[in-house]
Amino acid sequence: MTVGGKYKVGIVGVSGYAGLELVRILLRHPAVELVYLAGNHETDGPISEEFPHLINRTQLSIQKYDFEKCKQVCEVVFVALPAGASGKIATELWQTGLYVIDLSGDLRLPANLYEEWYKKPAIDSEAQQNSVYGLPEWNKDKISDARLISNPGCYPTAALLGLLPLYRAGVIEADSTVIVDAKSGVSGAGRAVKQSMLYGELSGNFYAYKVGSHQHTPEIEHYLGQPATGKVIFTAHLLPIVRGIFTSMYVKLCAGTSLDDVYGLYHSAYEKAPFVNILQKGQVPALKSVAGSNDCDISISLESRTGMFQVFSVIDNLQKGASGQAVQNMNIMLGFDETLGIDAIPFVP
Amino acid sequence: MTVGGKYKVGIVGVSGYAGLELVRILLRHPAVELVYLAGNHETDGPISEEFPHLINRTQLSIQKYDFEKCKQVCEVVFVALPAGASGKIATELWQTGLYVIDLSGDLRLPANLYEEWYKKPAIDSEAQQNSVYGLPEWNKDKISDARLISNPGCYPTAALLGLLPLYRAGVIEADSTVIVDAKSGVSGAGRAVKQSMLYGELSGNFYAYKVGSHQHTPEIEHYLGQPATGKVIFTAHLLPIVRGIFTSMYVKLCAGTSLDDVYGLYHSAYEKAPFVNILQKGQVPALKSVAGSNDCDISISLESRTGMFQVFSVIDNLQKGASGQAVQNMNIMLGFDETLGIDAIPFVP
Amino acid sequence: MTVGGKYKVGIVGVSGYAGLELVRILLRHPAVELVYLAGNHETDGPISEEFPHLINRTQLSIQKYDFEKCKQVCEVVFVALPAGASGKIATELWQTGLYVIDLSGDLRLPANLYEEWYKKPAIDSEAQQNSVYGLPEWNKDKISDARLISNPGCYPTAALLGLLPLYRAGVIEADSTVIVDAKSGVSGAGRAVKQSMLYGELSGNFYAYKVGSHQHTPEIEHYLGQPATGKVIFTAHLLPIVRGIFTSMYVKLCAGTSLDDVYGLYHSAYEKAPFVNILQKGQVPALKSVAGSNDCDISISLESRTGMFQVFSVIDNLQKGASGQAVQNMNIMLGFDETLGIDAIPFVP
Amino acid sequence: MTVGGKYKVGIVGVSGYAGLELVRILLRHPAVELVYLAGNHETDGPISEEFPHLINRTQLSIQKYDFEKCKQVCEVVFVALPAGASGKIATELWQTGLYVIDLSGDLRLPANLYEEWYKKPAIDSEAQQNSVYGLPEWNKDKISDARLISNPGCYPTAALLGLLPLYRAGVIEADSTVIVDAKSGVSGAGRAVKQSMLYGELSGNFYAYKVGSHQHTPEIEHYLGQPATGKVIFTAHLLPIVRGIFTSMYVKLCAGTSLDDVYGLYHSAYEKAPFVNILQKGQVPALKSVAGSNDCDISISLESRTGMFQVFSVIDNLQKGASGQAVQNMNIMLGFDETLGIDAIPFVP
Repeated sequence: MTVGGKYKVGIVGVSGYAGLELVRILLRHPAVELVYLAGNHETDGPISEEFPHLINRTQLSIQKYDFEKCKQVCEVVFVALPAGASGKIATELWQTGLYVIDLSGDLRLPANLYEEWYKKPAIDSEAQQNSVYGLPEWNKDKISDARLISNPGCYPTAALLGLLPLYRAGVIEADSTVIVDAKSGVSGAGRAVKQSMLYGELSGNFYAYKVGSHQHTPEIEHYLGQPATGKVIFTAHLLPIVRGIFTSMYVKLCAGTSLDDVYGLYHSAYEKAPFVNILQKGQVPALKSVAGSNDCDISISLESRTGMFQVFSVIDNLQKGASGQAVQNMNIMLGFDETLGIDAIPFVP
Repeated sequence: MTVGGKYKVGIVGVSGYAGLELVRILLRHPAVELVYLAGNHETDGPISEEFPHLINRTQLSIQKYDFEKCKQVCEVVFVALPAGASGKIATELWQTGLYVIDLSGDLRLPANLYEEWYKKPAIDSEAQQNSVYGLPEWNKDKISDARLISNPGCYPTAALLGLLPLYRAGVIEADSTVIVDAKSGVSGAGRAVKQSMLYGELSGNFYAYKVGSHQHTPEIEHYLGQPATGKVIFTAHLLPIVRGIFTSMYVKLCAGTSLDDVYGLYHSAYEKAPFVNILQKGQVPALKSVAGSNDCDISISLESRTGMFQVFSVIDNLQKGASGQAVQNMNIMLGFDETLGIDAIPFVP
Repeated sequence: MTVGGKYKVGIVGVSGYAGLELVRILLRHPAVELVYLAGNHETDGPISEEFPHLINRTQLSIQKYDFEKCKQVCEVVFVALPAGASGKIATELWQTGLYVIDLSGDLRLPANLYEEWYKKPAIDSEAQQNSVYGLPEWNKDKISDARLISNPGCYPTAALLGLLPLYRAGVIEADSTVIVDAKSGVSGAGRAVKQSMLYGELSGNFYAYKVGSHQHTPEIEHYLGQPATGKVIFTAHLLPIVRGIFTSMYVKLCAGTSLDDVYGLYHSAYEKAPFVNILQKGQVPALKSVAGSNDCDISISLESRTGMFQVFSVIDNLQKGASGQAVQNMNIMLGFDETLGIDAIPFVP
Repeated sequence: MTVGGKYKVGIVGVSGYAGLELVRILLRHPAVELVYLAGNHETDGPISEEFPHLINRTQLSIQKYDFEKCKQVCEVVFVALPAGASGKIATELWQTGLYVIDLSGDLRLPANLYEEWYKKPAIDSEAQQNSVYGLPEWNKDKISDARLISNPGCYPTAALLGLLPLYRAGVIEADSTVIVDAKSGVSGAGRAVKQSMLYGELSGNFYAYKVGSHQHTPEIEHYLGQPATGKVIFTAHLLPIVRGIFTSMYVKLCAGTSLDDVYGLYHSAYEKAPFVNILQKGQVPALKSVAGSNDCDISISLESRTGMFQVFSVIDNLQKGASGQAVQNMNIMLGFDETLGIDAIPFVP
């Protein structure tokens, strides 16, 4: 059933940035064999005709997605298409018994929240309810039993890793609002061709977007546990860089919670998490120190004048925020070591 | 007393980014004549030997600062040196009767706050008390009578223009904390040579710095009026761009305050301010839309789920955040139109 | 006929980068009044609805181009449309007697060369023959008598200013090939929406394009005088910056020509050219030292091991390479000082 | 003698960009164990205290270089110090019998050329003569027998891989000059702290440097074989990106040489070279398509109007131009597969 003992893996939606990052990772993953690449247009020859950085690294060509073909050649499929299309294909492949990882937002939310924020009809309630939210640091057991993973969004990954230790410990001050001020590199917006994404428009620029309406807002709250206290205000900003998310979070904690207490919570939450690094007190994470890796670096400060805590978390949006985490989920589902094939050291300088 | 009817102007600290921006502005200012440039090393020939973008635009050379010389040839002096040095020179020049604008933080704060946050002995209490804080949109009358201006910091300019309409109207919720999450281009850090400022370190990077200890924190609070309610938590981040500050501010307002009320406050506060643009509801400012100009663009949103207001403000840190505002202050002091010589249109693309 | 003594000016093709740069310049030009903006879609309100950096700077809206309207309200028209469309509109406006400056390549070349390199039918032979090539440093007299200007291409401007002193002096070695290795910022490619122009594709990237087939090749040779000796090989590369062209040129000169001789030729050629700066021996121009200005900086080196001369020239492709030079041409046509309204100091830092 | 069957490896000069890239590579190299890191200052704890991207990846600290210590714990040493210091340490370690790879220029040139271009006394003639120039595609046999490698410069690697097929085939036109117009990212200049390397100075900038005096000029010519014909003029330019070198080379070939002939030479020269990719006719390499990998992509064009050939080659200056190639040399010396540990796929996007 496997190629030389390796799982046969396919990617649907290979020509987006998440798809390309999956190719980079999976071509070097020791336990899988990449066998199928589907995109929105075909190449006669190898994928490197369109993506020259893959020259001489694979002879696979890009095909139009074909359900029968995909089902036949793959054991594991990553689906990385735009919302609306992605969840449908993930669902139909999952129904055939394949291992499926959907990188879109289609299966992450209950139908009512999905329809409210995505402004689209919900995909498939059964699939959504059977899917497992792939945040391994908080959901590893369920992932190891799953067949259908809904891979977390990039912003929610950074926010949830930064906030869950506080929410789970119940130390958020009653009726407070938690502020998630997030900044992302442009690869998070994908390769879709829009004037606003031109180099000439973004170079030297910075702005907030989708203020008050970003679809990652309900995902963050939902997986924080729909908290009665600590509702989240989430704001996304666009950084003129390619990769990385930096989140600055502002939290009021219950009276008497010290910075040492808080560090204790984080160390305890992540002591077995190979990709989460809790920095030392006084350090602040830098985006470039995780770019190119599946890491999440976190630090916490107490602003003494106001008594507010600040949590900073950084990830590479295409790695821990998308494709790296997707492979981490695959590793867990298939019983491999969690870090297999995704232990790259950040791309510095 | 003037050169062909023009005021004779000098710059002390010409080789930093604020100093260079003053040269760019003042060489094209119709009512002044640039006559004196002092820096930390001399050039035999014109300043363009060191700064080739000034070739054929002035024959002035850079001199070592000399009090007697400066006093003798200038009527107006801009001092743009590092904290500690700047205020001393500004003070001694002001004492001779010149018009002086100090771009450093040396004279902005009462002695106790200065010493606490700058970790230096206060400069000169009399000068500090006689200096006028040069935020023209809120202090124009005093500026027009001043001889010694302490020019606001870059972050405080963006934060105060964004927050003062709310503070002055008294609509900040009691006991709330106001969050100022600010992002700045690297020119704000000056031209001092540090490894962390190398291109290879900053390109593709983003991080918070001086968390909890940035010296602009007390400046913001002091000029908000040391509020009993609405204490400020200010966090600075470094953007991998050259110019511009973007601030995202989160504010709880008194119950019953509507978004229309808030827009009313801003329109009223800035109806006579030529450089402040209140964007339409639903718009968000972009950093590049002000870079190269003395503008400040502001927008406000109400996040309906949490009831929190978000205020966004953007400036060019070298223009409205430093040298442009310094010239605006000079214009007001000398009785010129506020916009004279600083009406450049943003540098787009 | 003029507005308060000012010429009434229109721009056709306002929403491209060259068009926007014309708006920036002309709104601050003391001798003209901008009265007409045509683009490929209309705005109900002012142009700042689409281009927020123009907020509060003009109330003009963007209109669909209308020949009758344009003819009626303008005395001078800049046409900055893609090749094929631009020259046709420029021609029809010129035929009505207006002053017209075409920023496209449509009227720069004889019909046969145009059709060969642009792969389009030639526009209008009469207009082409009556148009004047707007390189003021070498063609000022004809420009001052012109009604129809064909404004030079960005690369040809940099190359011709760098090479003409040598060609006119006849010092190019017989049968040698002159190499023009040129590097341009992305604004030269315009605002057209293409995947290759996305930030995510260009950031950190660099490559040559249109190798052997760039349509500026015949323009350079034609205006060098179709030299019997010194044929040009021109290669364009794309820089991950917004503005600026840097050309590195390699030239064999006749035996006995010294570096001093060469400097003499350049100083003599440009002694009356207000925008051309010949740097000192040993200096090399930097792109940022001209960006934002209408300057062209030039230096020359003699590589002693090979006897080859290197000429470096830099311009801002949107200023001296397009809109700045277009206004320079307008100034000359209308009898103003050549530098009126285009004396901005480079945007440093 | 080895750690668990792995060679014990050290790096001297770990805190420069080449040293850091060696750490990134060697920590993931399956046949070596990194045991020693020397830099210009010590860390008490692990190297990640200073370089946070290495957090949790190694417990090694940075030590001051100590000859006895290094000799004792290492079997293979990479020396990546500035010219002058590097060759001396490499020599003394080689004399003890270790495998040594010197990444500096100290041992690449005969004494007379070194002293002329580096303006320093030559290091050690015996070591220089016993060192092997580590360009594996052209020197693999000697490398496999070597104990002391002088690792090629970044520019020479790109230029030599692009030109040697033509020189070795003897098809360069007599008395012609070959032009190497090279553009490099800033990491090539190292992490040394200079004002010209600040982000604020380089962002949006581009210029040529060391015109006529770059020390890589004699290295290129020397390893082309001191050609009687085809002398090289080499010009370095600085790109505002972090990684990568793009070279545009212009060559006159003997009459009758066709583009097919030339492609034949390249395919033949590199058919067994795992890192060199000859692109298809009509393609041009892009810098980002090799960044992060040890690849060199090459294409050739014939400019039909002038009969000149253009060769384009691109590499990542820190990989194939420095540390990746150094590890390739180590692999060959130690008898491993040439690609072991350096088969990373380019970092796209």
